[in-house]
Amino acid sequence: MTDPVADVRLLPVTGLPEVRPGDDLGRLVVEALERAGTPLVDGDVVVVTSKVVSKAEGLIASTDAIDRSELVLRESHRVVSERSTDTGVTRVVASHAGPVMAGAGIDASNTGDAELLLLPHDPDASARWVHDKILAAVARPVRIGVVLSDTAGRPWRTGLVDLALGLSGIQALDDLRGRSDTEGRDLAVTVRCLADEIAAAADLVKGKVDRVPVAVVRGLGQVVVADGSTARSLVRAGVEDWFALGRAEAVRDALGVSPGSALSDNIGIESVRPEPLSRRVDRALQVALTGGDAVEAAHLAGDATVVRLRARSELQLGRAWARFEVALAGERLQSASSHEDGTVVVHISEG
Amino acid sequence: MTDPVADVRLLPVTGLPEVRPGDDLGRLVVEALERAGTPLVDGDVVVVTSKVVSKAEGLIASTDAIDRSELVLRESHRVVSERSTDTGVTRVVASHAGPVMAGAGIDASNTGDAELLLLPHDPDASARWVHDKILAAVARPVRIGVVLSDTAGRPWRTGLVDLALGLSGIQALDDLRGRSDTEGRDLAVTVRCLADEIAAAADLVKGKVDRVPVAVVRGLGQVVVADGSTARSLVRAGVEDWFALGRAEAVRDALGVSPGSALSDNIGIESVRPEPLSRRVDRALQVALTGGDAVEAAHLAGDATVVRLRARSELQLGRAWARFEVALAGERLQSASSHEDGTVVVHISEG
Repeated sequence: MTDPVADVRLLPVTGLPEVRPGDDLGRLVVEALERAGTPLVDGDVVVVTSKVVSKAEGLIASTDAIDRSELVLRESHRVVSERSTDTGVTRVVASHAGPVMAGAGIDASNTGDAELLLLPHDPDASARWVHDKILAAVARPVRIGVVLSDTAGRPWRTGLVDLALGLSGIQALDDLRGRSDTEGRDLAVTVRCLADEIAAAADLVKGKVDRVPVAVVRGLGQVVVADGSTARSLVRAGVEDWFALGRAEAVRDALGVSPGSALSDNIGIESVRPEPLSRRVDRALQVALTGGDAVEAAHLAGDATVVRLRARSELQLGRAWARFEVALAGERLQSASSHEDGTVVVHISEG
Repeated sequence: MTDPVADVRLLPVTGLPEVRPGDDLGRLVVEALERAGTPLVDGDVVVVTSKVVSKAEGLIASTDAIDRSELVLRESHRVVSERSTDTGVTRVVASHAGPVMAGAGIDASNTGDAELLLLPHDPDASARWVHDKILAAVARPVRIGVVLSDTAGRPWRTGLVDLALGLSGIQALDDLRGRSDTEGRDLAVTVRCLADEIAAAADLVKGKVDRVPVAVVRGLGQVVVADGSTARSLVRAGVEDWFALGRAEAVRDALGVSPGSALSDNIGIESVRPEPLSRRVDRALQVALTGGDAVEAAHLAGDATVVRLRARSELQLGRAWARFEVALAGERLQSASSHEDGTVVVHISEG
């Protein structure tokens, strides 16, 4: 009945110098660990903040040459959600690096003022590179794994946690399907994401402010298995991704206004701050009328909550009316309408 | 330049008996730790799997009395996403316990066959209860924190990780905004979710199969602060929640078909398995025609990819046409249409 699992230790790797392009990260880590009297042992997982890997790889963009917002689009292949803020537009994107992250994981802090740090486009390859460099620096046989970590937000929870951006030499998922629980029944769907839990654990001893970009997770030897796992395979895609667009974006996209497009920018993007009802109504109206139909829309008596739609063709009026209702629902607004020949009047209220 | 952060240890608490309703979980944990020669010390965070708390609190539902799917709806206040599977409908819901989780976190494994374990409705109160019971059993002054953990999926990543369902006596978020980085610049938005990282770390030594439902995270003393943090406050709500509905659900909802409703059930729910185009087209058509308009729809020449819409009123036809286009986009299908008096023909293709 007692469990074979033993203690796990999270060791911060302190005393690393500022990493610069071309640095041998493996040697720096191994030397720091040896100076601290905790050389690597079999079963260690070395968790390295992607930021120092980006620095060593020289993945730096100058803000003189490109705007941050353009860079976010360049470093991603799909916009998932977007909100306007006081300083621009924040976009959650499917990054070239793999994960869905705000701002494509582009990082400004801790680097020069006019410089932005980009994520490696193949973080699993970068993890293998770090792994190889560490083994070369250790210069004795040692069975270790490497996780490249990055910090990301989560849709439904406040605060950031670290996740596995890249990995080498570890088992990413612990698949308990098929095994039985203590009373002999099958465990239904229990696939644990070890790689992300390791990254999150290591973050507890890595410093965001103090310079501790590397930690060693010691005592998880069973995880250090070269089973071909990659961090990229942890990213849900296609039909597996039930949240490929945010709530508002899904509705706008279905009406022909894709997030990240010039059209979306022109129409205007929901703000992170409270907005007047009139702005939300007008945005819904613009989204609705991208249908291309010749429909005339006006606020009745200057009232933001009453919109009159008019068209020569009843077919066009019907289309615009239905699209406006859908767009209003996308703005979390309710509507009630009345219709007379050639005219629809829509009354709008908060949901 | 060296960092003050010291090692952190993850200690599995082994040798706990099967927990039963009414058990004093605090005493069981303290005794197990003392037997193992690792009594609690100042700064420890005790991470307890919610399952054993549910058992101790007797939060058990009989599957004789209620269907699991009804139970999921009863234990939640909003359906976020839903998919049909071979065995029923899987729903991601905003649970009464707080987090957004598949199946409201209801758990079958490790309990009797006809029994389901429910999550506490006030997990922060349950965490305080465990905290109090531990302090009473220790019977000496010790400054500890408690995290109630549960296992949840994530929208964009494969595999489950543990998160903080409830907490007591710890700082949930590490707010680095306002502090400066090593080069004196302000760190933009770096609020780390310590509570979730602690839960994830503890899961590395807790067993899903072997009976280790409790772990101690030792060495994070600075986190053990009674600052009034709750796990419930970690759940994003309202305008902060950009992913209040899945992509497909957002579109259906905007057309008047809410996930979790009888209407959604009747129309049919997207499957986790590949589906024939005809099924997706018919579902979109049904969603479109819930608008209530008297519209006649038919497949032209039995071709699933061509739908003819007819109505006496051009206004109704326009509405149904626009709604059908939106519903098709919600099914990730593209459409091109032609219109003649009283008739619209829609040609549908994969996106």
